[in-house]
Amino acid sequence: MRQTRILAKETPNKIGEAVLVQGFVQARRDHGKLIFIDLRDRSGLLQIVFNPQVSKETHATASELRPEDVVAIQGKVNKRPERLVNPKIVSGTVELEATDIEVLNKAETLPFDMGGERLNLELPTLLDYRSLTLKHERIRKIFYVQAALADAFREAAKQLDCTEIFVPTIAAGATEGGADVFTVNYYEHRAYMTQSPQLYKQIMVSVLERVFTIAKAYRAEPSVTTRHLSEITMMDIEMAFINDFSELLDAIEFVGTYMIKTVSEKYAAILEEFGVGKPLIPHKIPRLKMREAQKIIKERTGRDQSKELDLNPEDEKEICLWAKETHNSDFVTITHYPTKKRAFYTYPDPQDPEYSYSYDLLFKGSEILSGSQRIHNYGHLLAAMKAKDIDPNNFGMYLMAFKYGMPPEGGFSFGLERLTMKVLELHNIREASLFPRDMERVDERFSIISEKDKTKKVHQK
Amino acid sequence: MRQTRILAKETPNKIGEAVLVQGFVQARRDHGKLIFIDLRDRSGLLQIVFNPQVSKETHATASELRPEDVVAIQGKVNKRPERLVNPKIVSGTVELEATDIEVLNKAETLPFDMGGERLNLELPTLLDYRSLTLKHERIRKIFYVQAALADAFREAAKQLDCTEIFVPTIAAGATEGGADVFTVNYYEHRAYMTQSPQLYKQIMVSVLERVFTIAKAYRAEPSVTTRHLSEITMMDIEMAFINDFSELLDAIEFVGTYMIKTVSEKYAAILEEFGVGKPLIPHKIPRLKMREAQKIIKERTGRDQSKELDLNPEDEKEICLWAKETHNSDFVTITHYPTKKRAFYTYPDPQDPEYSYSYDLLFKGSEILSGSQRIHNYGHLLAAMKAKDIDPNNFGMYLMAFKYGMPPEGGFSFGLERLTMKVLELHNIREASLFPRDMERVDERFSIISEKDKTKKVHQK
Repeated sequence: MRQTRILAKETPNKIGEAVLVQGFVQARRDHGKLIFIDLRDRSGLLQIVFNPQVSKETHATASELRPEDVVAIQGKVNKRPERLVNPKIVSGTVELEATDIEVLNKAETLPFDMGGERLNLELPTLLDYRSLTLKHERIRKIFYVQAALADAFREAAKQLDCTEIFVPTIAAGATEGGADVFTVNYYEHRAYMTQSPQLYKQIMVSVLERVFTIAKAYRAEPSVTTRHLSEITMMDIEMAFINDFSELLDAIEFVGTYMIKTVSEKYAAILEEFGVGKPLIPHKIPRLKMREAQKIIKERTGRDQSKELDLNPEDEKEICLWAKETHNSDFVTITHYPTKKRAFYTYPDPQDPEYSYSYDLLFKGSEILSGSQRIHNYGHLLAAMKAKDIDPNNFGMYLMAFKYGMPPEGGFSFGLERLTMKVLELHNIREASLFPRDMERVDERFSIISEKDKTKKVHQK
Repeated sequence: MRQTRILAKETPNKIGEAVLVQGFVQARRDHGKLIFIDLRDRSGLLQIVFNPQVSKETHATASELRPEDVVAIQGKVNKRPERLVNPKIVSGTVELEATDIEVLNKAETLPFDMGGERLNLELPTLLDYRSLTLKHERIRKIFYVQAALADAFREAAKQLDCTEIFVPTIAAGATEGGADVFTVNYYEHRAYMTQSPQLYKQIMVSVLERVFTIAKAYRAEPSVTTRHLSEITMMDIEMAFINDFSELLDAIEFVGTYMIKTVSEKYAAILEEFGVGKPLIPHKIPRLKMREAQKIIKERTGRDQSKELDLNPEDEKEICLWAKETHNSDFVTITHYPTKKRAFYTYPDPQDPEYSYSYDLLFKGSEILSGSQRIHNYGHLLAAMKAKDIDPNNFGMYLMAFKYGMPPEGGFSFGLERLTMKVLELHNIREASLFPRDMERVDERFSIISEKDKTKKVHQK
């Protein structure tokens, strides 16, 4: 049967026609002599009915179908009676009466039920069976949203006249110093996996002025938290000829709100399904210096954080509540973090060098973006590296850019998985990564479960 | 001076107005009392004239400007007399009469002249000074083309209804077996940098049916050639529910020609500057089995390659010549490479299992794309792994996808740097990578030249 395949969503326009559909068996229901199959393809679900009076052989094959079997089915599209219309599925006004079936690939018996609206499994099991659990509709939706976020990021970057760059992830030195870096055995040498595209995007603003990149970054996080992964996807922008710190703030707020607005509109139904309200995006996002934010927190809660050099997660939640209550905003921009808490290249505020031209964009309770204006003077940069005990000899290519004409510049970075997690209000960042890497796992957990254990029926919540 | 900056290309629309421009000093020419500066920004060049009668102080500052100094200049836009119009630059109908200047950052004396139309340096020097040499206009253009290729790839992938995915680069096993893999010290464990996104994109077609990704890949190439890098950018597509091998060939030819056509049109001027003719894209790209190609090569050259299991670079050139002469095509698709020469997941031709449903797309003398239909049956895949001595235990997550419902599928992959190199007919793939990684270099060559040597004036060709 080599007719052209059509998708489930196209069937309502083919009433009375003989068509070919292909997909995965989502569920089988036997009703007396009739067998019903929910067929899933990338466009959605289609109900297929197998009647032994139409084809005995096809009916017999259907009687043995199991979830995730891959099938090609020919049949006639029939309009459903009004009372049987199912508005929840893309093809809900029709069903397919099967005339022929070909099983393209069989699936083994699933270790757990994939049929429910939610996949009620503990996270470790969700990840142990990632190649299977990703097939669940609710989980797939996370990654449609993720793809749309990346797309919206690129669109926003292009509106800022940024050029896309592809920068290396193997480097001679650790990006920002520090211990949380993976080493790679590079021929006869030791090299490092970059902790961010930071240094290369900075070099590139002296070349192309405005650049963006979506790049992998590697963090040897020594602990397991709900917010950190060992391999992440960063969406970075860097812009030269910054004349004023507020230009950078305008840019981050533009990109942040553009992405979230675009995706919330495109996937409003998914957000609703995940119980996420429409994001509150005011015309003007409130901006606070970190110390101002701490004062507000003290006024609201009595908690004196004025000796702290950063906002902790509780502070971030509180200041976001404040922004929502007083500015009807899910966003708030915090600036002027203490210079010593930020990376060496962060530009100190000339008025008050203890604090820096740094910023975080907070959204619904936590940071989704971080960045700063950068030191562009070669001598100042060297001094800043020395102050943080970073050996300039490991940063030759980076420093060269500052010797030969570096404009005033700044930039920022979103973590794609973190952003996906925030937009859908997921509980763990691992849910927002197709194949999350952490201290305990590269696909399989390091404490490897035996194959025997894994193929056992898993107990569901 | 905190006026809004305008770009060089905008000045022709501002005749008579006072404007602010910012950029890099490309060149300074002193003509008697007048000083001329070519200012470069991301839009192109602008000539600026400093007249001591307009501002003595500004003129004095200008007299000390050096190439790559970063400046902000205010002045009045004047129309040039007809005979002084320079059609080669974006602002060639005007010049700026400077009234004020601010030096935003000084550059050190350059180690070589950056002013010529070409940067006549040997490749090692080009790379030793990469942060500087990237600033040269001709080199920047390579990366505009590269960004446009990536964009066109994504557009084509979306036309095929593919969803973007972000897959890991740290894996538990080497992608395709083999020795050319970098190991990474992953907490207490040994892990591998992926040689391609192959296995993960295959898993993902069982989830999303059609996917694309732009991902880094790592190859511990044990030799230094003009065509290989240790870290590359791959543009991958994978599509499920392939009913016919020719569907895949249609898809690769669509994506390959779409990218090259789009970029050749957008950047026709750059291609011309690089001496590259308009690509020949026929309505129907010639398709040959590898053995047929070898026969044609024998007829044309007398060289008998019929015992060879692959086309060598000379063969690829010859068959591309044939395609050009007989089909007026810069493209030719070669299929059915010997099964044993291809990766374990390659689908053998059922009619003749010694040969496989594999293909390369050749463009102007060499391969720009490679791919195949894949084995989708779990048992067949296990057998194919065993035949190639690959331990299935390292591929648990991959194999899981084949247990639980994998459609017939296939895909393909372009190397972004290789493609950029071919489109602009560059001689070495390193020219098509911002910061190329190879056996000898991670930014700096491993046989490190002392800082003293590096800052010496370099001898130019």
